Amino acid sequence: MPFRKVAIIGLGLLGGSIGLAVREHLPGVATTGYDADSEVRERARELDLAQTIADDPAEAVRGADLVVLCVPVGAMRGAAQAIAPGLSEDAIISDVGSSKQRVGKALAEELPGHHVIPAHPVAGTEQSGPDAGFASLFHQRWCIVTPPEDADAAKVAALVKFWKSLGSTVEVMDAAHHDMVLAVTSHIPHLIAYTIVGTASDLEEVTRSEVIKYSAGGFRDFTRIAASDPTMWRDVFLHNKDAVLEMMDRFQADLGSMRDAIEADDGEAMFDLFTRTRAIRRSILEQGQDDARPDFGRGHE
Amino acid sequence: MPFRKVAIIGLGLLGGSIGLAVREHLPGVATTGYDADSEVRERARELDLAQTIADDPAEAVRGADLVVLCVPVGAMRGAAQAIAPGLSEDAIISDVGSSKQRVGKALAEELPGHHVIPAHPVAGTEQSGPDAGFASLFHQRWCIVTPPEDADAAKVAALVKFWKSLGSTVEVMDAAHHDMVLAVTSHIPHLIAYTIVGTASDLEEVTRSEVIKYSAGGFRDFTRIAASDPTMWRDVFLHNKDAVLEMMDRFQADLGSMRDAIEADDGEAMFDLFTRTRAIRRSILEQGQDDARPDFGRGHE
Repeated sequence: MPFRKVAIIGLGLLGGSIGLAVREHLPGVATTGYDADSEVRERARELDLAQTIADDPAEAVRGADLVVLCVPVGAMRGAAQAIAPGLSEDAIISDVGSSKQRVGKALAEELPGHHVIPAHPVAGTEQSGPDAGFASLFHQRWCIVTPPEDADAAKVAALVKFWKSLGSTVEVMDAAHHDMVLAVTSHIPHLIAYTIVGTASDLEEVTRSEVIKYSAGGFRDFTRIAASDPTMWRDVFLHNKDAVLEMMDRFQADLGSMRDAIEADDGEAMFDLFTRTRAIRRSILEQGQDDARPDFGRGHE
Repeated sequence: MPFRKVAIIGLGLLGGSIGLAVREHLPGVATTGYDADSEVRERARELDLAQTIADDPAEAVRGADLVVLCVPVGAMRGAAQAIAPGLSEDAIISDVGSSKQRVGKALAEELPGHHVIPAHPVAGTEQSGPDAGFASLFHQRWCIVTPPEDADAAKVAALVKFWKSLGSTVEVMDAAHHDMVLAVTSHIPHLIAYTIVGTASDLEEVTRSEVIKYSAGGFRDFTRIAASDPTMWRDVFLHNKDAVLEMMDRFQADLGSMRDAIEADDGEAMFDLFTRTRAIRRSILEQGQDDARPDFGRGHE
């Protein structure tokens, strides 16, 4: 392992999971953690999310050869400023943010001369905070690394190795392409889920109590990701605006076509789409990207 | 139990689960089954989904005091015609369809003088066919009974008792209201899921392979219900057209507002919505309508 000490800035679901995963998979690697919220730091100490929890961000990164920023993408610039005084010249500064172009730009601007290599482990749950983390979060999940063009190849390789050690499969990708891919596989699904849950809770004809009771008809699936961290997701949409708006326009156009099909009693158009979409599910299961048990393996008692 | 013999017409996920649930919860009640597909009948015999599997629909319902039609809503009228010759005068004819107004009308037209009491157990998985059923499908789930105005109160009570025996909680509701409620809690979520999975698989900038790889970012949640039975869902949209279109218009308007918020960098509007939607999730968990474990309790290995 090319790292002796990993510093984790932000100790929520992702940061905490990295701390636990390093302890499990890389027992020889030291960890330090920091969170801007003193209560989170206290809880992180109780949960032993990192070997040392520092009370100062610059102190946390001192001597670390890998620093992973695990804060909402809108807080990356501030986090970079806060750690700058303690950074080793040789350290890699990476992150786990869901949008990569603007984050990469902000980090490069705040930390000139440093090895900034953004990354995004595509993993998570709807939970947040220091109690939400677990060591196997990254197992069988993809991690996308988006190095700038002039990145040091050895540093990129070291970061790739780190994520593989935690159980991830790694893909190196251009940041702009990442932002387009994630807009469709993550950002638009979250936006749709938040929106339909909002629509359903604002209806006059259907009470909120009815929406909750009969949610097993499909609606409850959307409520899971609509329970994700509001700050994190607000920042994602603000930071990946262009790709999100582009993908949203495609989705809205397709939804309009389905509306036309329903209006015109065009059962064939519906049947065609509903048949095609089954194939995607099958591929996701074949590639181990979801639980193959019916209903996500949910309990039935 | 007010029934001695229950006939199940259609032996897919719902019909098969009813057969298994009756055997488990009502061991004194006889069951017969029928499916229009001879291969499904054969499989149903192997799986023992009902005590007797008849090769003729009228034969299947002979002597039954409860007949449950478990076919796609577009096939209800044909199923009613097929069972008519064998029906006892006193039998209740019910169903499990996801839309209730048109189904109720079709059954009443085809079976004049009979006790037609439509119902809808709000339960299911993305699987379909005779192998998909299981006895606990209805446990802790709601079943909505939508009797016509002139229904025999004792017959309604008997049907309610039947569903309670299988583990459901029962609500009696007007068919028109049912169709509005289910449009938002089930039909629109399915339509949205089918549509976004279609959008994602048709992109040129993002390959299908990328969509599959990075689906754990949220997209995979939608693929589950987008893998549901195409025939069943085509029929639902054709049969609950008005309510679906009305709810879709609300959703599209709300999505437009979110688009405006992103375009205007209005983080506050997003944060407000994303915070409100968490409360709905919490209520769904409190009322036992979803698995409270993070990520639906999905496996992480």
